Amino acid sequence: MDGSLQSVSGPGRVADPGEGISTQELALAARNHGLPLEGLRYDVTPPGLHYVLVHYDIPAVDATGWELTVDGLVRTPLALDIAALRSYPAVTHRVTMECAGNGRALLSPRPVSQPWLVEAVGTAEWTGVPLRILLDEAGVEPGAVEAVFTGADHGVERGVEQDYRRSLPLDVALGDFPEVLVAYAMNGEPLPPQHGYPIRLVVPGWYGMAQVKWLREVTVVDAPFTGFQQSVAYRIRQSADEPGEPVTRIAPRALMAPPGFPDFMSRHRVVRPGLVALEGRAWSGWAPVERVEVSTDGGGTWTDADVGRQARHPWAWAGWRVLWTATPGSYVLAVRATDVDGRTQPLEQPWNRGGFANNLVQRVPVLCVSP
Amino acid sequence: MDGSLQSVSGPGRVADPGEGISTQELALAARNHGLPLEGLRYDVTPPGLHYVLVHYDIPAVDATGWELTVDGLVRTPLALDIAALRSYPAVTHRVTMECAGNGRALLSPRPVSQPWLVEAVGTAEWTGVPLRILLDEAGVEPGAVEAVFTGADHGVERGVEQDYRRSLPLDVALGDFPEVLVAYAMNGEPLPPQHGYPIRLVVPGWYGMAQVKWLREVTVVDAPFTGFQQSVAYRIRQSADEPGEPVTRIAPRALMAPPGFPDFMSRHRVVRPGLVALEGRAWSGWAPVERVEVSTDGGGTWTDADVGRQARHPWAWAGWRVLWTATPGSYVLAVRATDVDGRTQPLEQPWNRGGFANNLVQRVPVLCVSP
Repeated sequence: MDGSLQSVSGPGRVADPGEGISTQELALAARNHGLPLEGLRYDVTPPGLHYVLVHYDIPAVDATGWELTVDGLVRTPLALDIAALRSYPAVTHRVTMECAGNGRALLSPRPVSQPWLVEAVGTAEWTGVPLRILLDEAGVEPGAVEAVFTGADHGVERGVEQDYRRSLPLDVALGDFPEVLVAYAMNGEPLPPQHGYPIRLVVPGWYGMAQVKWLREVTVVDAPFTGFQQSVAYRIRQSADEPGEPVTRIAPRALMAPPGFPDFMSRHRVVRPGLVALEGRAWSGWAPVERVEVSTDGGGTWTDADVGRQARHPWAWAGWRVLWTATPGSYVLAVRATDVDGRTQPLEQPWNRGGFANNLVQRVPVLCVSP
Repeated sequence: MDGSLQSVSGPGRVADPGEGISTQELALAARNHGLPLEGLRYDVTPPGLHYVLVHYDIPAVDATGWELTVDGLVRTPLALDIAALRSYPAVTHRVTMECAGNGRALLSPRPVSQPWLVEAVGTAEWTGVPLRILLDEAGVEPGAVEAVFTGADHGVERGVEQDYRRSLPLDVALGDFPEVLVAYAMNGEPLPPQHGYPIRLVVPGWYGMAQVKWLREVTVVDAPFTGFQQSVAYRIRQSADEPGEPVTRIAPRALMAPPGFPDFMSRHRVVRPGLVALEGRAWSGWAPVERVEVSTDGGGTWTDADVGRQARHPWAWAGWRVLWTATPGSYVLAVRATDVDGRTQPLEQPWNRGGFANNLVQRVPVLCVSP
């Protein structure tokens, strides 16, 4: 321990072959949490079941003094308190949000970070003010290319002390499909502390890293933002020394609400013989989900599931369902989503050093016991 | 895989020396979650931050048809729906709840189960009907010794298919200090699904395993209950073949809201030189906390912290606080609670095969950086 931030903050790394989950990864897993997969039964995820990822600490917030500033390359900088934000006409979107690192802990070799299996997802009704309304009011000046969003959570990451900060291209920030929200309510209630109280950004269709929580500042800038969370983290790269591609929208994924009942420790599923409803949710941040296929032989053969329509909630997951006649034996169920643009899920793992935007098909081992 | 439940359900075990956290333990850590320790700042834990441990699945519940039965050795069996339960005078208790396995993942060797570090705790206001009112109404018959509580969650554990089921001695079930509640509200709202919707048992001062969620049935019996969760799990034993002692009330523990700010991956804390408020919570299920001591040299020397009074809420944690003048360097902070009966926390780990009721003093490494 040499007294510098570097002494408490290691470089990014990939686990050695056979290396178990470390205490550091476990500490992240014990703080943050996924959606228990039986929670896929709810159209809108109940508070407390929606996945949560907090980079540093949940900030201590007194909403009374909270102010959102909109500044930088604008004609009229704004400073808005929560009452001012609530005075705009309220807009609500139902949005499925997923962590960019979902699935990371199943990769081989495993990128060492928050060790998600497949459960880092949730769907909520977010209410707030469209960001484009605020940017129009402030008046974006010519030459602007991005908006930078600063949250109140503060910490160190790979030796860099920082407030959490991310940017969006101006066409995304000003867009109306998806319509980016400055949100002050989740499922009709004030945001819970861990989801960004009192306000956060919601960018429908994008991975969680874009959805800046505890939002304090929107700064319009004339050059692409190169802060840590934009140019170091959240890049898709095969080796540590390449710049990589940015993580943006959510790749297609389907998940199954695990059928039957579990073993406590192995989480292995058990069903009885007979008709078993296989059901779950599927989503893509790029385009509506068109097709969901289910396999009961580990991906050898596939059956189309019925897929619910997404028309009213284009940024939320779609429900899917298919009936399976189970007979005694051991099975590996699998499910695969495809969106209307033809994007689908791979059967072999995609891999990158951060474990981002991977969307390997989910496999669910099931034992059908004798009656 | 031989087609039996045993094939998906292993025996209890202890990790090998140096064995990392397994994927099975990680799957539990990704579903269940602790209190992010900065959440110790709230007197009452906000929904979604309170620790959650679900043995099997969160059941799919339609409260409309829900019925609680009180039967067995009683004169008049009862069957109560939620409206009937709400028709009794409502009682509210503020209760600190902790998982019996809190701290397990820090033990060496590590019992393999839900891998808690120290964060499996939370405090809530629970509202419901005192259990003794219901038992008095049903009329407990002579010869009764225990009440058995059955929840709706169903699964397999070490080869035994079961509904989650636990008992209490009749004097505890009928007691008024602590007063056991059949609770239908948490912090003034209907219970969240993961906390037992629509009703659960709340046994102030006892570890979480007694607080049966999704409660369906109370059965008064004339012999000690020997079900799995009573006589196999939740026993304090050194070897697998001894009967062990039952886990009951919560051992004293103090935790610190980590000072300063964290590194994302190592969670190591960083503070600046100067006065740093060290604060947190302390509790014991046996008696009020009388003393909290803080060390900034890893337990070599101790200073008394100011401890908040618990008089209004005898079953909730007490706040504590002490000021520390930090100068650049590396520190290991520690905190230790003692209750009025003299129970305190050990500096060397206690150990048992299940990792239950261990309350080793918390140690928090902190780096104070140069200004």
